[in-house]
Amino acid sequence: MSNGTSGQTLYVINPNSSTKVTEGIDAAMAPLRQNTSLPIVCRTLAEGPPGIESQRDADGVIAPLLAHCLALENSAAGFVVACFGDPGLHALRDATRKPVLGIAESAVLTAMSLGQRFGVISILSPSVPRHMRYFGAMGVMNRLAGDLPLGLGVAELSDETRTLTRMVEVGHTLRYGHGADVLIMGCAGMARYRDTLEKETGLPVVEPSQAAAAMALGQIALGWAHRSGQDEEAR
Amino acid sequence: MSNGTSGQTLYVINPNSSTKVTEGIDAAMAPLRQNTSLPIVCRTLAEGPPGIESQRDADGVIAPLLAHCLALENSAAGFVVACFGDPGLHALRDATRKPVLGIAESAVLTAMSLGQRFGVISILSPSVPRHMRYFGAMGVMNRLAGDLPLGLGVAELSDETRTLTRMVEVGHTLRYGHGADVLIMGCAGMARYRDTLEKETGLPVVEPSQAAAAMALGQIALGWAHRSGQDEEAR
Amino acid sequence: MSNGTSGQTLYVINPNSSTKVTEGIDAAMAPLRQNTSLPIVCRTLAEGPPGIESQRDADGVIAPLLAHCLALENSAAGFVVACFGDPGLHALRDATRKPVLGIAESAVLTAMSLGQRFGVISILSPSVPRHMRYFGAMGVMNRLAGDLPLGLGVAELSDETRTLTRMVEVGHTLRYGHGADVLIMGCAGMARYRDTLEKETGLPVVEPSQAAAAMALGQIALGWAHRSGQDEEAR
Amino acid sequence: MSNGTSGQTLYVINPNSSTKVTEGIDAAMAPLRQNTSLPIVCRTLAEGPPGIESQRDADGVIAPLLAHCLALENSAAGFVVACFGDPGLHALRDATRKPVLGIAESAVLTAMSLGQRFGVISILSPSVPRHMRYFGAMGVMNRLAGDLPLGLGVAELSDETRTLTRMVEVGHTLRYGHGADVLIMGCAGMARYRDTLEKETGLPVVEPSQAAAAMALGQIALGWAHRSGQDEEAR
Amino acid sequence: MSNGTSGQTLYVINPNSSTKVTEGIDAAMAPLRQNTSLPIVCRTLAEGPPGIESQRDADGVIAPLLAHCLALENSAAGFVVACFGDPGLHALRDATRKPVLGIAESAVLTAMSLGQRFGVISILSPSVPRHMRYFGAMGVMNRLAGDLPLGLGVAELSDETRTLTRMVEVGHTLRYGHGADVLIMGCAGMARYRDTLEKETGLPVVEPSQAAAAMALGQIALGWAHRSGQDEEAR
Amino acid sequence: MSNGTSGQTLYVINPNSSTKVTEGIDAAMAPLRQNTSLPIVCRTLAEGPPGIESQRDADGVIAPLLAHCLALENSAAGFVVACFGDPGLHALRDATRKPVLGIAESAVLTAMSLGQRFGVISILSPSVPRHMRYFGAMGVMNRLAGDLPLGLGVAELSDETRTLTRMVEVGHTLRYGHGADVLIMGCAGMARYRDTLEKETGLPVVEPSQAAAAMALGQIALGWAHRSGQDEEAR
Repeated sequence: MSNGTSGQTLYVINPNSSTKVTEGIDAAMAPLRQNTSLPIVCRTLAEGPPGIESQRDADGVIAPLLAHCLALENSAAGFVVACFGDPGLHALRDATRKPVLGIAESAVLTAMSLGQRFGVISILSPSVPRHMRYFGAMGVMNRLAGDLPLGLGVAELSDETRTLTRMVEVGHTLRYGHGADVLIMGCAGMARYRDTLEKETGLPVVEPSQAAAAMALGQIALGWAHRSGQDEEAR
Repeated sequence: MSNGTSGQTLYVINPNSSTKVTEGIDAAMAPLRQNTSLPIVCRTLAEGPPGIESQRDADGVIAPLLAHCLALENSAAGFVVACFGDPGLHALRDATRKPVLGIAESAVLTAMSLGQRFGVISILSPSVPRHMRYFGAMGVMNRLAGDLPLGLGVAELSDETRTLTRMVEVGHTLRYGHGADVLIMGCAGMARYRDTLEKETGLPVVEPSQAAAAMALGQIALGWAHRSGQDEEAR
Repeated sequence: MSNGTSGQTLYVINPNSSTKVTEGIDAAMAPLRQNTSLPIVCRTLAEGPPGIESQRDADGVIAPLLAHCLALENSAAGFVVACFGDPGLHALRDATRKPVLGIAESAVLTAMSLGQRFGVISILSPSVPRHMRYFGAMGVMNRLAGDLPLGLGVAELSDETRTLTRMVEVGHTLRYGHGADVLIMGCAGMARYRDTLEKETGLPVVEPSQAAAAMALGQIALGWAHRSGQDEEAR
Repeated sequence: MSNGTSGQTLYVINPNSSTKVTEGIDAAMAPLRQNTSLPIVCRTLAEGPPGIESQRDADGVIAPLLAHCLALENSAAGFVVACFGDPGLHALRDATRKPVLGIAESAVLTAMSLGQRFGVISILSPSVPRHMRYFGAMGVMNRLAGDLPLGLGVAELSDETRTLTRMVEVGHTLRYGHGADVLIMGCAGMARYRDTLEKETGLPVVEPSQAAAAMALGQIALGWAHRSGQDEEAR
Repeated sequence: MSNGTSGQTLYVINPNSSTKVTEGIDAAMAPLRQNTSLPIVCRTLAEGPPGIESQRDADGVIAPLLAHCLALENSAAGFVVACFGDPGLHALRDATRKPVLGIAESAVLTAMSLGQRFGVISILSPSVPRHMRYFGAMGVMNRLAGDLPLGLGVAELSDETRTLTRMVEVGHTLRYGHGADVLIMGCAGMARYRDTLEKETGLPVVEPSQAAAAMALGQIALGWAHRSGQDEEAR
Repeated sequence: MSNGTSGQTLYVINPNSSTKVTEGIDAAMAPLRQNTSLPIVCRTLAEGPPGIESQRDADGVIAPLLAHCLALENSAAGFVVACFGDPGLHALRDATRKPVLGIAESAVLTAMSLGQRFGVISILSPSVPRHMRYFGAMGVMNRLAGDLPLGLGVAELSDETRTLTRMVEVGHTLRYGHGADVLIMGCAGMARYRDTLEKETGLPVVEPSQAAAAMALGQIALGWAHRSGQDEEAR
């Protein structure tokens, strides 16, 4: 089950085409870079849409995401798919023996060690049923306190004060109305809000790309790999 | 929430490129055609792979499947995605207000009215974790008796006697070893085995493309439609 | 497993004695009648109480309901039990090989293909624990957003404007307070409110007798039948 | 919420007409009678069938069972419904403020304090899906190890050695094959096998009529009562 | 599996050092003492803290609690651990063949026979995640309506009017906001509030030390015992 | 929510007194030490029993474990509790703001990113119900394939060939009989068997102390901390 890692880089792929989001993810990696000699490289999927807002958007990035990752496979120690919803996660696990982590899965698993019931702060309400399907697939519905959208449009999201104020409001509702004792940011690229959100809500806040990169570093170090389709056929 | 149906045809799309599978699906529609005046047209997705065996295969057909369906939208009364695993189901629901049914979802929902615990007869073992994720997303794990693969290669599958013998064996294991009281065929295009499998196992057998087409006919008649992304934005 | 259907009629039985409810159910069948040549006949159980409001009421109709249905068995293609709560559903499945559908079960299964979390609009609060037991028996609690009563007395229910206003209120609470993305009307005979309720809440609304009749038509066409006690003994 | 108990007798009702079963239940009460001054009276429902083997049988006894119990209400301190499956349990709770316990519910709740996963020894295989629905309604599927039938016909059941041998076999399968650490006898009237079954399997064995009578004595002493329909209407 | 009971006393151990709490528990035993000849003796664990408010407090009492109980084993018919959270419950079950009941476990099991969804009134909010873990371990999350803290400090708790007013408030929220149809007092020693709380909320209220003592009396009478470590090794 | 980490060492505490187990844990840290500059120090709890085999053993180590850890708090960056079952995990989280990971929790969370259904290889059968309670508390029962004991006594465990042979046997049963696609070693100190077990079973194998140390390193780097009792009181 060795993943035969020879590559030297952890690739964190932002599957939307917004370089600003990629920059936010890259900044979130800073604390991890202090503790590892492995390079962490954040990349933008040029073929992705500006934002992933629907299941259709999510499914649409899978093919270019796989192509992008497989072209990097030789130099890769592992991959993080950095869109909350983890498009292509299992397809990429089918296609490579390198560790592949998704930011939604990793955020939930990390939150499960930081509190008993996690609350998710989503951007838009249509994401919520998609998340429910995903948490159901993960078998963790009993740990979910709630998943609430910010409900902010693009213009409002560009106003950082407005966004942060709304995140704190939703965080309070998740804590006091739904019993959350740990929060998950339901999107990538917003690590800059984490500290304030933790202080204002009094709860630990999981930034999902950090959660996934940390799990990836561990799995790379320990040589773990998902059982791939090839392993199956080889038997 | 009207789906504004003006189209007159139920399209059943086989997302793999095997016309033999499409023919099997088409034959399975015969009993439904006797009871409805709505044309049921089965189509092959030329861009699909010969068979869908991995999550990667499944995700890969979503983009061409959506294009294929949206090109038919004007004449469509509704759509069935005829691959067990339902690739693109939610993406297509995001993209059209017409009823869209998947054969795995419909087979499970139908089986839940025919028995208390359903057993699934899959083709290959790597499908099983994919199915588990899907049944988890559906929230129906407590109704699952088991999901067991036939474990037959392509050559063996072309031997109908061999295939049927193995299906009956797996059906017996699901009934007597796992407590199944209804069976689901975990693939499209094998309706011809249904009668014998029912007789030999003593259990009702859900052929999934039949289940989905029947549900689609009902939803078309009743004007139901999934809430689409557009509805959300319109509010 | 053939159900040996020779009968030609789908019987929809209202197990309470209110002919006004039966008329409401009959009107709800109109769209289905356009798509099938099979007669759909709605009948009132004369022995039933005016309304079924408690578990005791529900259990009390089972014996006359079975007698009523079995007297019709020769001419029946299948049966729908048209009381939300499905009294006698499994007893009738034990007693006949014809397809038997219940409106609560069918409404939930249908809603599971139209949204991720269903909300139920019940008439009276004592029904709610009864529904919880039933959804638990179905294994679908993870898909339930909430079940809220209208809390209207008989006099208020006869005021259609008042009733509809209250249904819309409860629908909004289920959507915005509980995260429902599909609604179920938790009683028979109110299909006339469906369109307005869908428009006002922006969600698909499942009228349960329609859901059950549609599923019954599919199962009749496809020759499915629940495994009956006789099958078991025969082995 | 006082149940206003003035009655002085705990009635244990066997809803089938077999007096031999009632005698078995009565014998099982001996250890409880040593610790309470409250009379425990076991009664046979003359209107019941000789045995309750199907959902139809179970539902059919509800009406006479209710009539039987309500006729005893003045002298009753509480009721036990002594058929595994608990027919009429909730209907009787709707109809009286006296404590009402069912033997299946009580056996499961008791077993949950004696082990982590309970195994059920059923008489006939058609009972199993009925039990699954009931355990699902109770929300305890994660505590179920398995439910396996003896599969003995009437003639074989009258052979006590044969029956006990088979019970021990099934008990071993539940322990070593399914991970049960506590067993439930899935029928009334067989308390005489309990000691041997415990010794042979090394597991605690819950005889369900004992479990229900013990819980009833506690609830009578403590003045607990299920919220009844009347309470609801009174508010 | 005989527990070989020769002891004659049911010991109810309050694992905190507050004799006032022990007195409250002792008073709660009165109705049970009227129905049994078995002495019920309530004891204070001198080594315990004044109150158990954290997981650390709970874990800290286990060692002295075990020592305390094992010193009493010869004269014991059984034990109740009278702290909501059941510290040491399974350790004590490992160490003795006498019946051992915990008040949280017993309260939940009892509530499951008195309503469909239980609401828990806790003292302080940090207890809530601890309770969630425990209800999860019991596999009963689908029966939980909610668990809400009083949020009263020590000074306020000594004000009985203030405490009762707040308990009723929380009870109403659990009933009307969360759908609870039975309430559990999430602490020992407060049986004096039970009657008023039942009257004001219209729901049955389970006082947990009563629930556990009643279950213990039943298990003692019936000779049930948890499978102990010794049994395992003996095989 | 900053954990105010000033300490520089990750402490991995073996709560049993067997230095051989501690040595096995220490050896398992090698791959992680290559990727971090943070010292990882493994320590033996002198006050612990030679092995932790029962709930009583597990609970008994909590008090000395807490004392041991709190004495190290100033120099600690975080803690790992290295006994499968995680004794004292939540108590220690109550007592310190430093990250605290348990090896059972971390192994399960890690396995959930490596496969869909995890199988656990336990040492002795009495551990299994304890694990079931823990997996239930974690809310992950739907991801569990099975938990099977080696059933080897102390003498047999010291025979490494015998132990490994038996681990492979159990691993095969978990894969082919229970559908596991990832395995967890249900004890600490056996990392030396991991490679062979992976090769022989064809599945990824999670060594739990590695899983916990990797998660701890991530949480230390990212400054995450469980909400502690102090935070609660401070508000």
